Amino acid sequence: MTAAPDLTSAPREDGVDAAVAAARRVIESLLRAGGSSTAEMDRIADQLNSVADHLDEHAPERDQRMVDMWAREDFTRHDPVTGPENAIAPPLHLTARADGSVRGVLTLGLPYQGPPGHVHGGISALLLDHALGVANHRAGLPGMTAELTLRYHRPTPLFEPLTVTARQVAADGRKIRTTGAIEARGEVCVSAEGLFIAKYLPRPR
Amino acid sequence: MTAAPDLTSAPREDGVDAAVAAARRVIESLLRAGGSSTAEMDRIADQLNSVADHLDEHAPERDQRMVDMWAREDFTRHDPVTGPENAIAPPLHLTARADGSVRGVLTLGLPYQGPPGHVHGGISALLLDHALGVANHRAGLPGMTAELTLRYHRPTPLFEPLTVTARQVAADGRKIRTTGAIEARGEVCVSAEGLFIAKYLPRPR
Repeated sequence: MTAAPDLTSAPREDGVDAAVAAARRVIESLLRAGGSSTAEMDRIADQLNSVADHLDEHAPERDQRMVDMWAREDFTRHDPVTGPENAIAPPLHLTARADGSVRGVLTLGLPYQGPPGHVHGGISALLLDHALGVANHRAGLPGMTAELTLRYHRPTPLFEPLTVTARQVAADGRKIRTTGAIEARGEVCVSAEGLFIAKYLPRPR
Repeated sequence: MTAAPDLTSAPREDGVDAAVAAARRVIESLLRAGGSSTAEMDRIADQLNSVADHLDEHAPERDQRMVDMWAREDFTRHDPVTGPENAIAPPLHLTARADGSVRGVLTLGLPYQGPPGHVHGGISALLLDHALGVANHRAGLPGMTAELTLRYHRPTPLFEPLTVTARQVAADGRKIRTTGAIEARGEVCVSAEGLFIAKYLPRPR
């Protein structure tokens, strides 16, 4: 058995990926904290602002950063679903399957909560829109979302493994049809159908 | 002219909201950083892990935190779209308008990027799903998303003010129909139609 090919960037153990993984811990811990005192939280705000100040001092201008970020082959490093450099990404890691589909497993915590103990419907939409896009890349014909329909079959649980799958099902000229689903405990929680158009925005230069 | 009634929690200047605002800066700065050295990033990872460790030491157990978070009247403080306690939320702040709709204005930065220089289609879906839900609350008949259709009319720009609006348009028994849109420069970028069902998950006790 060979390893499934990666379609998203696997996080590294050090460097910016480690800092981003730590930032994800901070996001979750701030939601968990609840009853900390105002003084305590003000001290934590100072520490976090000091980290941001330090990073900003050494960062390139935004326009330059945009050029750099899109010049790289591994442009999957910064998106809000799979990006190891983006702390709002869970991150979801997707691999290619032999049948042409893509698949990933993830567990979501408190930052992604909608109804009590369950995943926010909009977060499921975010995961599926992205997975459908990756399935289009995997099929060799990517595009931009024109229409996306999500059906919510049952609540999607937090704190449990979720399986995200997607597959390009048809392409007719520039129109692409792609489907996907999020499953928990072997049952479909959310399914998605997308119409994509094979067009692309220019990369910043 | 009286102020429009708040439908989401306005962030406070201190306490956990200030710490969360600082965490948002860290998320953005990490994406901006680009070329920082591995050693430098490892040092930042240590600082952020130390903040998370400290918060975790003093945090209640997860189950207890879930009970507390949902026992409060201001349960809009922790969601991933409007929550001042949730660093992945931009946050979007929505107010009620006299015509029955809800409205908010926000500007999105690098963490929310999909195509170059533009908002991720799934992030637009997340904002709209949530805004439709708040419009249902505002109408006095909330529900859970059963089906959501998004139409992408033109790319949604980053770094520019976006106006998010939503309105409950019909209710027939437990079936609720709600629409919304994201506009930039006076033009609709994304529109949404949702079918919601008036049912609710129990709050943790």
